[in-house]
Amino acid sequence: MVPGHEIVGLVTKTGSNVMKFKVDDRVGVGVMVNSCKSCEYCHQDLENYCPQMIFTYNALNHDGTKTYGGYSNTIVVDQHFVVRIPDSMPSDGCAPLLCAGITVYSPMKYYGMTEPGKHLGIVGLGGLGHVAVKIGKAFGLKVTVISSSSRKEREALDRLGADSFLVSNDPAKMKAAFGTMDYIIDTVSAVHALAPYLSLLKTNGKLVTLGLPEKPLELPIFPLVLGRKLVGGSDVGGMKETQEMLDFCAKHNIAADVEVIQMDQINTAMERLAKSDVRYRFVIDVANSLSQSQL
Amino acid sequence: MVPGHEIVGLVTKTGSNVMKFKVDDRVGVGVMVNSCKSCEYCHQDLENYCPQMIFTYNALNHDGTKTYGGYSNTIVVDQHFVVRIPDSMPSDGCAPLLCAGITVYSPMKYYGMTEPGKHLGIVGLGGLGHVAVKIGKAFGLKVTVISSSSRKEREALDRLGADSFLVSNDPAKMKAAFGTMDYIIDTVSAVHALAPYLSLLKTNGKLVTLGLPEKPLELPIFPLVLGRKLVGGSDVGGMKETQEMLDFCAKHNIAADVEVIQMDQINTAMERLAKSDVRYRFVIDVANSLSQSQL
Repeated sequence: MVPGHEIVGLVTKTGSNVMKFKVDDRVGVGVMVNSCKSCEYCHQDLENYCPQMIFTYNALNHDGTKTYGGYSNTIVVDQHFVVRIPDSMPSDGCAPLLCAGITVYSPMKYYGMTEPGKHLGIVGLGGLGHVAVKIGKAFGLKVTVISSSSRKEREALDRLGADSFLVSNDPAKMKAAFGTMDYIIDTVSAVHALAPYLSLLKTNGKLVTLGLPEKPLELPIFPLVLGRKLVGGSDVGGMKETQEMLDFCAKHNIAADVEVIQMDQINTAMERLAKSDVRYRFVIDVANSLSQSQL
Repeated sequence: MVPGHEIVGLVTKTGSNVMKFKVDDRVGVGVMVNSCKSCEYCHQDLENYCPQMIFTYNALNHDGTKTYGGYSNTIVVDQHFVVRIPDSMPSDGCAPLLCAGITVYSPMKYYGMTEPGKHLGIVGLGGLGHVAVKIGKAFGLKVTVISSSSRKEREALDRLGADSFLVSNDPAKMKAAFGTMDYIIDTVSAVHALAPYLSLLKTNGKLVTLGLPEKPLELPIFPLVLGRKLVGGSDVGGMKETQEMLDFCAKHNIAADVEVIQMDQINTAMERLAKSDVRYRFVIDVANSLSQSQL
């Protein structure tokens, strides 16, 4: 298996039918490299929900070949599944946007969580959460990071620009925040309680979960009915929206916070990842090009 | 306590500031008779979500008086919480629309479950469910009634006009229906599994729960994320939308299916209600007027 699904690089060669890109264009590849191109979801630019969507790595493509990801010098991808990296964007900070960025941007658009002045809570400050803070601020939202401890408070406020920080294990602070939020993005994949977060929402509030807990979560129905609240999910985004997200991030000077490593540092990075010791994504400089000049 | 919150009658007297109604107008009163009139929800015609909303019966109104419901000869209500009954509507079949009708109409509008040709599943065929079938059909939806047994199948198809009927306890039929529905309205108040219904939804499908189970329901997150599905709630509707719903129902010849009883039959009716033995609402002819002529 060759992993890697947040890939940025330069075009080295194009097929004869490729009109979208030319050699030396800086481009990106995200979580998928193919889909059926004919179903209702493909027709709506929602290739990510196509039942025949092909993952960027470790999947069997429609022609029977296996897909190999971005931990490599080159990758061959259908132009439809390639996006253009805006000129102003750094390659390293841009790469994680191709999965983490679109995964938080897409639900904010789909569920209508972009009205300036509204209050967005973000549960979990990791790869997804830290980009959600930046994108939320760019939409003009008031952003509160919700975390189980105060450990990341200064980080959230000073480095990422969140407006406030809420410790979910502090009952008094949680109670004071009841009914103050319009939207919540929940990035936590561990099994956890939804009820405290639903309490934070105002009437008409929306909670979107992006994590994938292995077991069902307990859903109290009273707050949903009495406060017309909803719990929704979302999974990355389509190619058109991925390009839109990149252009939006370029316009607002948004990039992921990353730590660039070389290929031979991967094992150490994996060990640190297991301890959540990274702010907030490792990016592998496969071609050893970032240390010399901007790719 | 004087219960009753689906009330239809004639105006017998109006206050000096009442411009909306005059004596002998046929009017209705639903679940609420007051609200603060100044909060963000009241300003958006969502009095039903106003924290100071006053229920039609057994509540303390803002002036300290207790509210008494529709099991009575007369009721005094602020004109803002009174709706006009369209001329073409029968009083008896209209009364349940003031709670059951608006409770299913409002979420269909709010959650965008009204696109003609889309497929709506309705879980539970009772007071709410049977009106949901009619309103769903009026919006041009394909409507499937989902019920635990086939007992109500002919009823749903022949009398109410549903397009199809699905027995939720039949695993083969449920499996065949996987991924076929765009919307589901779940009217069940007992604790029940959401997973089977989420499986019936297509990608982007929406399930709205209107019942109030006492315990949390199990919510599997995978279908939400991988299929961008949502679970939402909703609680009756505001006064403006209640009038809109009545006008919509009048236009489409929709009324609730009711059994009219006299005041002295209430105890028997209550016993039958406890056994779910009613299609689908009892309406009390308080003034003994329906038996003589149309109120």
